[in-house]
Amino acid sequence: MSEQPTLAQVAAAAGVSPATASRVLTGSVRVSTSTRRQVYEAVSRMGYVRQRAPRGSVSRNPVTGITAVICDHLPRLFSEPYYARLLSASGAVVAENGTHLTITTVNPTSSVLPTLSGAVLLVGARERHPLAIKLCTSGITVRNIGRPPHDLKLPFADVDNYDGGRQAAEHFLLTGRKSVAAIGGPPSLPAARDRLDGLVKTLREAGVAEVPVAYGDFTAASGTHAMQWLLRHAPGLDAVFAASDLMAAGAMQALRRAGRRVPADVAVIGFDDAPVARHTNPALTTVRQPVEEVATIATRLLLSGTTGIDPILPTELVIRDSA
Amino acid sequence: MSEQPTLAQVAAAAGVSPATASRVLTGSVRVSTSTRRQVYEAVSRMGYVRQRAPRGSVSRNPVTGITAVICDHLPRLFSEPYYARLLSASGAVVAENGTHLTITTVNPTSSVLPTLSGAVLLVGARERHPLAIKLCTSGITVRNIGRPPHDLKLPFADVDNYDGGRQAAEHFLLTGRKSVAAIGGPPSLPAARDRLDGLVKTLREAGVAEVPVAYGDFTAASGTHAMQWLLRHAPGLDAVFAASDLMAAGAMQALRRAGRRVPADVAVIGFDDAPVARHTNPALTTVRQPVEEVATIATRLLLSGTTGIDPILPTELVIRDSA
Repeated sequence: MSEQPTLAQVAAAAGVSPATASRVLTGSVRVSTSTRRQVYEAVSRMGYVRQRAPRGSVSRNPVTGITAVICDHLPRLFSEPYYARLLSASGAVVAENGTHLTITTVNPTSSVLPTLSGAVLLVGARERHPLAIKLCTSGITVRNIGRPPHDLKLPFADVDNYDGGRQAAEHFLLTGRKSVAAIGGPPSLPAARDRLDGLVKTLREAGVAEVPVAYGDFTAASGTHAMQWLLRHAPGLDAVFAASDLMAAGAMQALRRAGRRVPADVAVIGFDDAPVARHTNPALTTVRQPVEEVATIATRLLLSGTTGIDPILPTELVIRDSA
Repeated sequence: MSEQPTLAQVAAAAGVSPATASRVLTGSVRVSTSTRRQVYEAVSRMGYVRQRAPRGSVSRNPVTGITAVICDHLPRLFSEPYYARLLSASGAVVAENGTHLTITTVNPTSSVLPTLSGAVLLVGARERHPLAIKLCTSGITVRNIGRPPHDLKLPFADVDNYDGGRQAAEHFLLTGRKSVAAIGGPPSLPAARDRLDGLVKTLREAGVAEVPVAYGDFTAASGTHAMQWLLRHAPGLDAVFAASDLMAAGAMQALRRAGRRVPADVAVIGFDDAPVARHTNPALTTVRQPVEEVATIATRLLLSGTTGIDPILPTELVIRDSA
């Protein structure tokens, strides 16, 4: 097997045409979920084989380690379950390869480049993040988790956030909701924008002209606050989409306090399928994002030095009781 | 001010004799809690001043960063609240100094030295840990959190685990408990051994010849399992000390299932004063360990390159409802 799998090899392994594989891997157009899964299974499988049997690949620079650079405040590393899922999955791949995962956090305003060993898995970079910009031009091998902000040119691995928002909108439309509001994440984060865009554009295409939006920072407290704002400014709402499960849980608290029943009065859909989604009352209908899978693929692509492939993994609506 | 504060300077700042300061800092004999606090406040204060005004200290090697090396499996970094408390506190000190905290985990059997930048804060090293042994002889500046295993010669910062066990024993004795059992942590970890030693030796001095012990790994599940074992082997027990709050919470579940009331039938004391201690039913009596403070002092000593001081911070019994 050659140094890096070619697009043709990935396509052949997935049983699709190179053109289709290309569409999946660049995320440029919509492809069916099953086709997408086939292609990513092939990418994942081929990456795995190559790492376990790298015989003869002399020209390859072996990656001596991976540093996960989390663009967030250190205490959030422990309070945000997304990081635990992402880093545990990435760490398992790194350990399989006999090397180390190092984790460091950088504040959103910091431009001090930490001492880095090997390649970098960049997480949570927002627009104009000075450190992320520096990393882009540093010559260090980097892969971003999530589509990078438009000011950054970086390889990435993402989940289909836009399609997750679209699925939420379609579920609201199919269940007869008329007045949909949204709680967005930080607008400087592409993942947050994509979730909202998928929702709003799909509703607009269906003739819903206006979607009131309040913004949070992915925490439960911010979801509660945003929901209170929405209830004041759009008291007639009968559905709300939150860009994270924690914000959805916080929104449900605000709805309960306001005397609105979920889902009878207001349907709620979250995003993540985090553990909290099973523990809310009622259990949360949410868009599942494959956090572990995207971390696994991104880490394998980093370790193998593969470029030219920017996987976007499918998201999936999980229907429970809140919508 | 000179390059490093001398013992005499610390003693003078604390208002105690150099001999007393020495006893506190080496942890060799028992000193009153208030004296110990005075000395550590001086250490902490002097370290802080020196970092904020390091003028003229030309011979000092500036530490470019700190790597926290956690000797544990990566997912435990997120599930064990001790790490979140410790690393958030250490990270705050590092950030104050304009540098980075990097975090890496190494499995207990790994001997692969990760690429390290600057100084190392070593956490959770057990006896004969191959990586810890390697670090000792590497020439890298290291400070261990906790008294190091006896096979390692390393500067450290610790909490008075032995005295915590002693305080638990005294509380049991003062409240008329006759048959005390213990749930220890991993015996290869000095902190776990010290907690148990403090309990068992104090009870022995009071004439209690035998203390049944079961061991866990600091998790709630292991506490439940250990408690079940103790109930089978020492059914007459009326008190149990657990070397972590999570194990105490797990033990309380086992006691409830066995129909034993806490504290009427069995008194329970934990160790940590972790958030869970307030949420058990009844609320947990526990030995508070100053995790944030030990992390802060250890990090300051690392950043300032200070050696010859191995602080042992006092622990304190917090009496709630379970004992």
